[in-house]
Amino acid sequence: MEPRPAAPGPCPGDSRGAEQAAAASSLNPAGADSRPRRRAPAVAAVLPAGGSGERMGVPTPKQFCPILERPLISYTLQALERVCWIKDIVVAVTGENMEAMKRIIQKYQHQRISLVEAGVTRHRSIFNGLKALAEDQPDSKLCKPEVVIIHDAVRPFVEEDVLLKVVTAAKEHGAAGAIRPLVSTVISPSADGCLDHSLERARHRASEMPQAFLFDVIYEAYQQCSDYDLEFGTECLQLALKYGHINAKLVEGSPDLWKVTYKRDLYAAESIIKERISQHICIVMDTKEDENHVGHYLEEILKNELNHVKVTSGALCPASRDLEQIILEQCYNYVCVNVMSSDFEETRKLLNMLEESNLSILYPIVVISVYFLDYKSVPFDEKMESLIQIREYAKEVKKRNILLSGLLICFPQDEQRLQASLRQGVTIIATLIKERNSGLVGQLLVA
Amino acid sequence: MEPRPAAPGPCPGDSRGAEQAAAASSLNPAGADSRPRRRAPAVAAVLPAGGSGERMGVPTPKQFCPILERPLISYTLQALERVCWIKDIVVAVTGENMEAMKRIIQKYQHQRISLVEAGVTRHRSIFNGLKALAEDQPDSKLCKPEVVIIHDAVRPFVEEDVLLKVVTAAKEHGAAGAIRPLVSTVISPSADGCLDHSLERARHRASEMPQAFLFDVIYEAYQQCSDYDLEFGTECLQLALKYGHINAKLVEGSPDLWKVTYKRDLYAAESIIKERISQHICIVMDTKEDENHVGHYLEEILKNELNHVKVTSGALCPASRDLEQIILEQCYNYVCVNVMSSDFEETRKLLNMLEESNLSILYPIVVISVYFLDYKSVPFDEKMESLIQIREYAKEVKKRNILLSGLLICFPQDEQRLQASLRQGVTIIATLIKERNSGLVGQLLVA
Repeated sequence: MEPRPAAPGPCPGDSRGAEQAAAASSLNPAGADSRPRRRAPAVAAVLPAGGSGERMGVPTPKQFCPILERPLISYTLQALERVCWIKDIVVAVTGENMEAMKRIIQKYQHQRISLVEAGVTRHRSIFNGLKALAEDQPDSKLCKPEVVIIHDAVRPFVEEDVLLKVVTAAKEHGAAGAIRPLVSTVISPSADGCLDHSLERARHRASEMPQAFLFDVIYEAYQQCSDYDLEFGTECLQLALKYGHINAKLVEGSPDLWKVTYKRDLYAAESIIKERISQHICIVMDTKEDENHVGHYLEEILKNELNHVKVTSGALCPASRDLEQIILEQCYNYVCVNVMSSDFEETRKLLNMLEESNLSILYPIVVISVYFLDYKSVPFDEKMESLIQIREYAKEVKKRNILLSGLLICFPQDEQRLQASLRQGVTIIATLIKERNSGLVGQLLVA
Repeated sequence: MEPRPAAPGPCPGDSRGAEQAAAASSLNPAGADSRPRRRAPAVAAVLPAGGSGERMGVPTPKQFCPILERPLISYTLQALERVCWIKDIVVAVTGENMEAMKRIIQKYQHQRISLVEAGVTRHRSIFNGLKALAEDQPDSKLCKPEVVIIHDAVRPFVEEDVLLKVVTAAKEHGAAGAIRPLVSTVISPSADGCLDHSLERARHRASEMPQAFLFDVIYEAYQQCSDYDLEFGTECLQLALKYGHINAKLVEGSPDLWKVTYKRDLYAAESIIKERISQHICIVMDTKEDENHVGHYLEEILKNELNHVKVTSGALCPASRDLEQIILEQCYNYVCVNVMSSDFEETRKLLNMLEESNLSILYPIVVISVYFLDYKSVPFDEKMESLIQIREYAKEVKKRNILLSGLLICFPQDEQRLQASLRQGVTIIATLIKERNSGLVGQLLVA
């Protein structure tokens, strides 16, 4: 199996704002910034993933719950590993989930991951992760980092900019963490279950993840802290304060940092992921670009109706460099428009390219093979041959996480009715891409 | 237009646990409980809905964002109005949304709703709602209740039991509110944006909604409270404490009480609603019940594969009492199995019944018309006539919020291949019901 394509990340060819670029250059030894700057700190991340997910109300721990058939934790690992200046990612999992975790790492080709055994509480799991990174562990292959990020396995949407902010702030302050405004007012109950007092919402924040620490600060805090802390504590920043006398810098995070806690959060995460991979559609034509034909009508309407979506065209012949580039850019949606022919040759070529790219390791790819037909004048029987073909073919590529459907667009001579057919075709394309449900693969839909 | 069917509620024929029944009897004057009991309090609800939804990142205020094409606030109103002992529901909306709100009430036939103008803050909106309920408003048609519930327009999943609990506790304590465990640790920042201290998570709770108050307690609190409270306060329980010296009773709520705040919450709410209305599928057969035919195979597999879903059969002829009952029970999913005929007569009858019931006012109904075909021996042309028919028909009923698709199940003589076809048919049925997407109406899918 070929390696999966590199996830889009900042390194090496990243374009971002000047401020962030300057900040990043202090972390990246390869940076071209010529100003005098501090040595780049070595950064590692620790991910406690030993939770049982009791709040989810499902038997699978939430970090292993599938989203588009891939476990949640794999999305979080993907978010961390695409940041190339995070050198090691240490994941703490329970003994009973160790083998499952190894299979996830292998299947989704995660890199720079080390596994340690989780403790019975979150703090004990983090401590185990830190121990593995400390130099005083003789059997460890890991290097002690200058800064360590602590993140949650169940916060899959962490972006590089917030990681950079907490790491930079940790270098300066010793500790830093992302915060968010409170959604609900926080109250303190009395012993008899009545309101004792309520906290002023504006004066308090929710402590979220990621957090970052100078490694020595947090490791020493964990070494000093009490069993009570390890059993009942929930806040690493509090340990740095209590044992390291460090007031952590608080960094405003985005709403995306929320923690997948309840079943509804899994639904939300799935919708967000589906939305993110539906932002780019590639139209593959079997004819030359500048002809004024129905395929280009379709492309135009697609662009108009889905105006928040990037629509690009690719060609399969002769050298198909465009398409290679589009696949490299991780486009997960392909509309293969067959104007000249009514066979599957073009679709087959596209599917071969997609299979070779290994793009579908991480997300299901939607491929819609479009044909045109005036159903009033052409008998359906021969088209049904195609239907049978597409079903068999769809069954085959579904094993590779490619969701293939066919779309037959009626092609009346009447211009107005043609527009209506094309618009319905676009509605069907948008639905198949949005839902990304494998239950409809191999269908020949009619617009 | 006929009135929409009554939503399932506690009154009159509700079956619930003994404890709850006893509690309810103290609220319901019609209760059959013969023990001496307090007079039932009159209960009203106030719903502040004047928010701008700035956290959502979309221009529409979140309470008006559509879920399955119906505004979020309509779901919340539905949840409150199905509780028959809530006599009045006062909604505070801004002047600019007043007309839109009136249209929502009319379109979804909400009852017992009064509108008042929202204030510029949440507290001012609630105060306006309370004023409308107070007897000293000469132009008000409302009666002053003994207990008032305060809820949020953006918490659509409030169940009767928690409403009952807060009302009962408010009668006893003067004030009561739902709480939830904290998901994140709460911290207090210092002026320079660093951690001052973190709060022990186990000693604090998130204050959620609904809350309930003796009307006089909360109304007097609002009359006494300062402009600062009205501008910057967020917590009604705090007003009852500060001005009424009442320590509100805190009631543990379910995770469903969460507040739709961010875009991801809309996604979550949509998935939850779709899941809830997909729990009951009715199979309508065109033949007698006890025959051993392919329609019953399909029903069997449907029951096996969707084992968490209630599957019931209905018959269209002769008197169709079963089906009437199933529609009354608010089943939103129908599989119309055509074994004896290949026309649309049965489906048409079913659609007529559904249209007459007005069931689809609140949620889109999925109807799948199933046919059987040995595609190797029968020409497709005549089936395509059906395809054209189903498309036209689907377009028509979609206007009434009914999503009609066709499903052609191949019927090979080979028993094993028949099972495979039926299983694929069930997968398609499950997908159409789960996604409930109007983009695929009128399609003839093939299993």
